[in-house]
Formats: sequence, structure tokens, C-alpha cells
Amino acid sequence: MKIAILGGTGPQGRGLALRFAKSGVDVVLGSRDASRAHEIATELTQLIGGSNGELGVISGTDNEGAVNAADNMVILAVPFSAHNATLTAIKPLLSDKILVDIVVPLAEGNPKAVAMPAEGSATEAAQALLGNEIPVVGALHNVSAHTLNKLDQAINCDILVCGNDLAAKEQVIALIQRLDVAAYNVGPAVNARCVEAITPMLIRLNISKKVPFSHAGLKIWAPST
Amino acid sequence: MKIAILGGTGPQGRGLALRFAKSGVDVVLGSRDASRAHEIATELTQLIGGSNGELGVISGTDNEGAVNAADNMVILAVPFSAHNATLTAIKPLLSDKILVDIVVPLAEGNPKAVAMPAEGSATEAAQALLGNEIPVVGALHNVSAHTLNKLDQAINCDILVCGNDLAAKEQVIALIQRLDVAAYNVGPAVNARCVEAITPMLIRLNISKKVPFSHAGLKIWAPST
Repeated sequence: MKIAILGGTGPQGRGLALRFAKSGVDVVLGSRDASRAHEIATELTQLIGGSNGELGVISGTDNEGAVNAADNMVILAVPFSAHNATLTAIKPLLSDKILVDIVVPLAEGNPKAVAMPAEGSATEAAQALLGNEIPVVGALHNVSAHTLNKLDQAINCDILVCGNDLAAKEQVIALIQRLDVAAYNVGPAVNARCVEAITPMLIRLNISKKVPFSHAGLKIWAPST
Repeated sequence: MKIAILGGTGPQGRGLALRFAKSGVDVVLGSRDASRAHEIATELTQLIGGSNGELGVISGTDNEGAVNAADNMVILAVPFSAHNATLTAIKPLLSDKILVDIVVPLAEGNPKAVAMPAEGSATEAAQALLGNEIPVVGALHNVSAHTLNKLDQAINCDILVCGNDLAAKEQVIALIQRLDVAAYNVGPAVNARCVEAITPMLIRLNISKKVPFSHAGLKIWAPST
């Protein structure tokens, strides 16, 4: 299996690339700067101890090349400021592929707040921009880059997955489960308004130091002991 | 300490009344029907094993009487359809009190979706209706009535608290902590758009049976083990 991660040179994209490669998935990092993507791919390959038959291969190229190289799942991990422009550029290449949107529209200069687009959320904006033929799945918003990059530790929080296409969500959930985390279908794309907005609340808790750990995550939990 | 719970004869209100009385807080149930509130109060008092010095006293009256009887915290636990009408009726009585809004605007006939009011959330609608002089704190949205009413078991999920008045939030957090649960300040009232919307996602998970337990809750979690 080969996936693309656009914005793959950022902290979130790098962490996901490392985790997926360790789970045996080939990863093509996409960036506006192909040589930068190639450089980061080389660096990440060294971090996971080179390449062998069990690990996935990490490579890097431009965004368009990464989309074309992916089997059928493309993870969008760019800053929100580049969200729509990146989607517009790759839209013609996305037929028969699933766009996995992990972008959180954080307010400019305030990571404790969202500034949602008119469509309601990044995931809904992506679905509106790409049209109904290309399924958009929102996922992986609430797991911190710090956590993703700490390869010696498990990702001990749950992943909420939303979108309007059930079959696409199930494929994305199966992909995420390769990272040894629980991933739950929490409903249609409109629920991304909630899922994306959880991230700044977690960032707020981290900043406030009111939780006895840093880089808080979220778990769906049995209410009674 | 004496609090009021409006809509206190419903399943959420009853569960909260039982839990708070067990923690030593006096609870006045409010209802449009005072005799019904009185009846339920008698029933709940029997459920916790009568009244003694350690338990809080549960009584019942009409909504206005309950607000007047409360020291300074009034929990609003009515269905969303009665949210604004109840607030309009009690507004003149709320000076120097804190309104704790636990209402989730579930879509009519679909508990897996929210139908948010124009203000963005129930908490924001309450704040707009009551004006800035009366602090509104959103809390306790994501803990199921089933869980609250199972008195033999701890409430093993976290409570997210939001609102625009920090001092009011701190009082509400201190109140909730009497139930032996963690309660976190997750920011201003606008974040109720997210916090309230978590409830139908949990209901969806319960209905889907994709979680290995029923009446799912939520926990803020250390990301790494």
C-alpha cells in the first residue's frame, strides 16, 4: 500500500509518515518544493533505521507527483492557509482517490481557537471544493505532532473519523488502525465542525497546564468502572 | 450549599440530583409542575436512603421557586425545546446567580445530530438571552443520564466546562468535582459549539455498537503510555 501525505514536510506530516512507514505502508511526501520533500524523506528514512522489507519506503516529490504515486489515499496535512489552494491544484488528479483531511483551521495567532471557513469546517470546505465525486474523510485532527513523532511510545488516544462516504471512511479507519490506535466513525462531514474544534481545546489544556501531562489527547471511554 | 436543577424531573436532572445530594449538596428540583417536582424529590430521597446529616436534602417546587431557593447556581436541564422559554421566565430571578447550561440541541427525531440555534450553541443562546450580567457556564453535556443514575458506579468520564466568565467557571468546576470527576475549563462560550456537539457523536457510537461498552463518555488523555 502506498499513500501520499501533502504538507508531508511539516511536523504532523512527518510524524504520520514515520508511523505509517513503520507499519509497512509506503509513503510519498508531497510538498510545493520537491527537493525539500526528497530531503525530508531521506531524513525520515534514517530515523526509522533505513529501509527493509518490513518497513514502508518513504520518498518525496512535489504535491502533484505524490498524489499520482498514491494508490488511493491522499492525506492533506498543510496549514489551513494553504488548504484550498492545494486542493484546487490537485483536484484534477484525485479521481478514484480519497482525500483524508487532517487540517484544523486554527485562528491566526491563536492556537486556542478555530476560525472556521464559511462551509463550517475544513473537511466540509474540502468536500465543497472537490465536489461529491471525490470522497473527503476528516481524521487525525486531535493527535499532536509531538505524539506522532515520539516513535518509542504508543499513540494512546483515539481517532475520530467523519465524512459523508461510509466506504471511504472504512478504508481510512483501516489505514489508521495500522498505527495501533482505535479509530471511530463519528458521522457525516458536518461533524468535522466539532472534531476539528476539539484540537484548540486540547491545545488550551496543554497551555493551561491544568492537565497532569502535556500534549493531551482524547479517548472514548466507558463511563462506569 | 443549595443548588437548583430546572427540568429536574427528567432523567439527566434526576441523575444529577442524586449525585449532588450524595455529595452533600442540597438540591431543589424545579419543574413547570411543582407537585410533580415534589413527587420526584420524595422518590429520589428514598433512592439515596432517606436524609441524614451527610446527604444533601432533595426538595421540589416550580422553576421560579427553585431558582429563588438556590444559593447561586442554577442548572438548566430541560429539553432544548423548552430552553429559551424557561430562561425567559426565570431571567428576572437570576441576578447574582450562575446559570449552568447542560442542554444539548439535538435535532428533532435524530439524536445522532445537533440542530444548533442561530447563536451557535445552547450555551451561547442562553448568554445572549440573559445578557452579560448573568454568567452562563456550559457543562455536563457529555455524561449520559444512564451513567448519572447508576449510583453504584463512579462517573468515569471527564466534564468539559466552557463559558465567558472565568470566576463562574471555577465555581462550577468546584461543584462538579464534588462528584469525583475531572472537570476542565475548555475555553469561552463559543466552544460550546464543539462541546455540545460531542454528545450526538457519543450517542452515534452507542447506537452503532462500535465501542465495546454502552453509554460512551469522553476522557482527556495522556497521549503516550
